[in-house]
Amino acid sequence: MIKAAIGIDIGGTNTAFGIVDGSGKVISEDSIERKDYGSAADFVKKLSSGINKLISKSAEELDIIGLGIGAPNGNYYKGTIEFAPNLPWKGEIKFADMFRQYFDLPVILTNDAKAAAIGEMIYGAAKGMRDFILITLGTGLGSGFVANGELIYGNDGFAGELGHVIAVRGGRLCGCGRKGCLEQYASATGIVKTVIEMLAQSNEKSELRDIAEDSITSKKIFEAAKAGDKLALDAFDYTAKILGMSLADAVAITSPEAIILFGGLALSGDLILKPTKMYMEENLLDVYKNKVKLLLSSIAGSNAAILGASALAWKSAISK
Amino acid sequence: MIKAAIGIDIGGTNTAFGIVDGSGKVISEDSIERKDYGSAADFVKKLSSGINKLISKSAEELDIIGLGIGAPNGNYYKGTIEFAPNLPWKGEIKFADMFRQYFDLPVILTNDAKAAAIGEMIYGAAKGMRDFILITLGTGLGSGFVANGELIYGNDGFAGELGHVIAVRGGRLCGCGRKGCLEQYASATGIVKTVIEMLAQSNEKSELRDIAEDSITSKKIFEAAKAGDKLALDAFDYTAKILGMSLADAVAITSPEAIILFGGLALSGDLILKPTKMYMEENLLDVYKNKVKLLLSSIAGSNAAILGASALAWKSAISK
Repeated sequence: MIKAAIGIDIGGTNTAFGIVDGSGKVISEDSIERKDYGSAADFVKKLSSGINKLISKSAEELDIIGLGIGAPNGNYYKGTIEFAPNLPWKGEIKFADMFRQYFDLPVILTNDAKAAAIGEMIYGAAKGMRDFILITLGTGLGSGFVANGELIYGNDGFAGELGHVIAVRGGRLCGCGRKGCLEQYASATGIVKTVIEMLAQSNEKSELRDIAEDSITSKKIFEAAKAGDKLALDAFDYTAKILGMSLADAVAITSPEAIILFGGLALSGDLILKPTKMYMEENLLDVYKNKVKLLLSSIAGSNAAILGASALAWKSAISK
Repeated sequence: MIKAAIGIDIGGTNTAFGIVDGSGKVISEDSIERKDYGSAADFVKKLSSGINKLISKSAEELDIIGLGIGAPNGNYYKGTIEFAPNLPWKGEIKFADMFRQYFDLPVILTNDAKAAAIGEMIYGAAKGMRDFILITLGTGLGSGFVANGELIYGNDGFAGELGHVIAVRGGRLCGCGRKGCLEQYASATGIVKTVIEMLAQSNEKSELRDIAEDSITSKKIFEAAKAGDKLALDAFDYTAKILGMSLADAVAITSPEAIILFGGLALSGDLILKPTKMYMEENLLDVYKNKVKLLLSSIAGSNAAILGASALAWKSAISK
């Protein structure tokens, strides 16, 4: 019999789930496509039956210690998903409670970035760290702040919105209705906006000019930058500058041992890591200089989100 | 026999110390002037003898549970004061260890803003709160962030430097060597700089024009604003705007139940509180709007710093 946790990553296009052992090995996994979501109750029923199938098919007998869920707009305290713009369910959905009808297990729900932070703490680059920041650079910018060995949920469960600190006063309009939010610059979407601006404002030759504007992706910018395209490299530099300055401010608040980059844009590796580190150091208060590690996620990969979610269950079991 | 804690507030001009009971009553207090500081070893010896005098003169028998020290550049983890520009001792001084030679008690040392945060948590406006931010608006701007019921010290003990997040890119030169730090705007010193700028840039009538520039103080600006002086009121508004915008960003990181203003400029009461609240709300991400209380310290007063320092000892005793 081996101890294991269930991890569920609820996403706008796909929901992945799996069984994970204590070392961070995904024993088995499966997923549900968006078109099959149905009502929230249907969805939880389908997911639960999918999870039970994985459990019953397991070669070894499993001692499941809990169920962790990472979800957009997930509220840790209430176990709810609240007004998530990219999910089909309106209002406040009591997801954790709905799962408890199918499983007599601890159910822990939080947002995806916080789940990733716990994932790094349990299995990844933040193992043994008591103070660090996890940044997800995907469509938006999410974050999880860990201090004194505990994730900061804040008074309402919604702490860690580093993507919505104002990086550029009066800057780009954000989906939140305000201007200049960090995620409008430092994210997969942000670097695309930067490239489109640069293409319009300069005459610099670039292979990105040959792509229709709405087909430019962060991956194509990455490919161009790797091939030495100057405009693409400039876009990475600008992204890193805005991110580095904001990270320097974040360091002044929680003074972390490390900042870990996770998600789409972090897959660009040194192209994003090196300039971000340089700009962060340039902007740090003296007392923090050369102290804060900037690292790439070590649980990145196709099932990183399942790992992150499952880690919620392990973390909860440890804390008891 | 009553339980009590020792609180010591080490300052650039004066060091105050006292005996405090569990309800936050200062039983007795005394102080040492800067001119009598001497070497660090001499100073600790004098302080220890002063404390012992207070203890022996006490009418009731005391059960002292510990000794808390608030000090500029105080490092909680190491119990040291490190390179404090306004203190006469150079380098890293092992203050906590030096006190342990005189007292067989737990000795806890941290910086003044963090001590004030613990003070609010034990005796003051943050009683019962698990997530809040304490801001000291004195010569500079200090801060203590509390999350999950614990003060955030960070990896190196130097977390909570909100005074050194960049509020205005390329703005006023700060003592730290960088430009636009929040404390250059939102502090007793900051509002004086704002008034001097406003006097130079406008023709607005103001009673502050009758004062020699280097005699303008935050207290005089407060008096003028209370009397309806428009330029003084504008200076409060500008100070509150910069502070409110930075607080909105800080909320996005730790999502506190309350932010508590402490120290010199906080004594201006509603003149600083009301516009800061307005600008903070204006700049908050929707999810945080109308949730975060902005409060004035409830331990402010002549011996607030002693209370804050003594609270370190109570907090440490509770955590055990």
